[in-house]
Amino acid sequence: MKAARFHGPQDIRIEDIAEPELRAGAVAIDVAWCGICGTDLHEFLEGPIFIPAAGHPHPLSHEEEPVTLGHEFSGTVTALGEGVDDLTVGENVVVEPYFVCNECAPCLAGNYHLCVKMGFIGLAGGGGGLSEKVVVDRRWVHPIGDIPLDEAALIEPLSVGHHAFVRSGAGAGDVALIGGAGPIGLLLAAVLKAEGLTVIMSELSAARKEKALSTGVADHVIDPSTENLAERVRELTGGVGADVCFECTSVNVVLDQLFDAVKPAGVIVNVSIWSKPAVIDMQKLVLKEIDLRGTIAYVRDHAATIKLVQDGKVTLAPFITSRIGLDDLIDSGFDTLINHNETAVKIVVHP
Amino acid sequence: MKAARFHGPQDIRIEDIAEPELRAGAVAIDVAWCGICGTDLHEFLEGPIFIPAAGHPHPLSHEEEPVTLGHEFSGTVTALGEGVDDLTVGENVVVEPYFVCNECAPCLAGNYHLCVKMGFIGLAGGGGGLSEKVVVDRRWVHPIGDIPLDEAALIEPLSVGHHAFVRSGAGAGDVALIGGAGPIGLLLAAVLKAEGLTVIMSELSAARKEKALSTGVADHVIDPSTENLAERVRELTGGVGADVCFECTSVNVVLDQLFDAVKPAGVIVNVSIWSKPAVIDMQKLVLKEIDLRGTIAYVRDHAATIKLVQDGKVTLAPFITSRIGLDDLIDSGFDTLINHNETAVKIVVHP
Repeated sequence: MKAARFHGPQDIRIEDIAEPELRAGAVAIDVAWCGICGTDLHEFLEGPIFIPAAGHPHPLSHEEEPVTLGHEFSGTVTALGEGVDDLTVGENVVVEPYFVCNECAPCLAGNYHLCVKMGFIGLAGGGGGLSEKVVVDRRWVHPIGDIPLDEAALIEPLSVGHHAFVRSGAGAGDVALIGGAGPIGLLLAAVLKAEGLTVIMSELSAARKEKALSTGVADHVIDPSTENLAERVRELTGGVGADVCFECTSVNVVLDQLFDAVKPAGVIVNVSIWSKPAVIDMQKLVLKEIDLRGTIAYVRDHAATIKLVQDGKVTLAPFITSRIGLDDLIDSGFDTLINHNETAVKIVVHP
Repeated sequence: MKAARFHGPQDIRIEDIAEPELRAGAVAIDVAWCGICGTDLHEFLEGPIFIPAAGHPHPLSHEEEPVTLGHEFSGTVTALGEGVDDLTVGENVVVEPYFVCNECAPCLAGNYHLCVKMGFIGLAGGGGGLSEKVVVDRRWVHPIGDIPLDEAALIEPLSVGHHAFVRSGAGAGDVALIGGAGPIGLLLAAVLKAEGLTVIMSELSAARKEKALSTGVADHVIDPSTENLAERVRELTGGVGADVCFECTSVNVVLDQLFDAVKPAGVIVNVSIWSKPAVIDMQKLVLKEIDLRGTIAYVRDHAATIKLVQDGKVTLAPFITSRIGLDDLIDSGFDTLINHNETAVKIVVHP
């Protein structure tokens, strides 16, 4: 079967590899669509990062590069391993793409997403969504009913947004400010709108500002290069400030602006992955009693996320900006996202 | 009456000033003892900071320097203003030393300690505990029953510790790590022990290490200059890490160590006042899902704090390292705390 495999930085190859074998407790899936994630781009440009380098196999998958890529995918069940009796061949599913140890303190505390050995299917081994077929343990397979398979490829990043929402502790009626209207910022905004919050987004790019407004996920979009963000947020909130802020840019000046725009006793959730330390105003953290919270991936978020889509509270189609085949992965996929990333939100690949 | 008044940096004078006049809704108090706070030292060395500078009166007290100092004090009620009928002349009390506006968004949300105009009695005007008498609005006066008056002067900083504990969300059975065994670190440790937590303290100073152990507020004291703090904390917690950490030093390397020592999904409360920004490892904040929370002063903490002392769960006497008169404030008080601050915990002043 065809698969996109990471051999090193700038070296992703579409290769013909053996089909994965079904095993007890697992599910065989024909991949329908797989999204390209910012993490995939980072691996392509400067990897291996999460991918286990040659000579350093992942402690749970025992695999190392080359590995098959793709962790945002949907597909159709083609066979069930021994002991799996609660799914049906022909059923459409998405995958929560984890390896976890089930033994460490975070796993035992229920925080399997913080497993000390955690890896992602599609980065750490176990095949991936950028291939025709994949076999995944039943635990990580979530039925999606009649959600279209292309849109379902976005449920993984939507779950990232759902988990950030849960981490924030916010609820209906609250006002949220999101720094950055990239793919994760937009999908997070979709979750927040679905949950009944008012959403303000801060964004410089004209294309992204337009997307935030045309999809209806943002109530207000503010350009911090032409307006004072904190002042505008206070105007929009009767002088109070945002109840909760989400940092989705990994840009320090954006984080600084959220410190100003959040209300006293408010929460800032950092969603983005930073490649460098941040400098923060501790005086403001203390005197405003700000909570600065990290969030990573998802934990028990898929069921609620899928329900938001099934109930029509989140509409995913507008976030798919192109559909390509596996052979076009680098030229039409990675290249677009790296060099024209303001216009693209999610590119989904049909292997 | 005699009062210690701030006239400028390095210029605190013991002066004879008019006694404050009783007003409706307020309580006249003869001050018994007043503690010297780190904030007072900062004002002495580099103020005015919280003190309103000449020409910039505080928006609520309408006072400016010179102002009477002292916000950690106990005393005895000598007279009750019109409308105050739930206290008794002769009753011993402490003061929660606030000016608040009751109008801003934080005040209306119940977060009066985050009032946008907030000031402290003893810094922003309203007299202070480093004088013979003070008049305070009833709202801020808390009866203390039979708690000795010298120990009661420590209820204000103990309330700071209580509020930090509340902010942490921790509870009985949790393991806390405190960075720094200065006055606030020790009093916070006393609250945590009283609330049923295991307390680990990180401290360099031999005198402070000894105090943490001899007072019984720390179960373990670790010197991070001779041991790997995070490794030792994991040893003490079965590999898990601390449930909650408290930063009480405003030293960046200590904050870094707490990021390592806290468990995944753990909480770090920053208690100290920083005069500069902090550099933090956002990757760790994200991948461990750390909550970094600011805490300032207290809000509705005094009743619970006083009860901890009345019930004998916190013993304050060992934290009083000397008792002096007002005339010795600079020579025996400020000088000791500034130049010999490892041996002193709390110096209380009898005006």
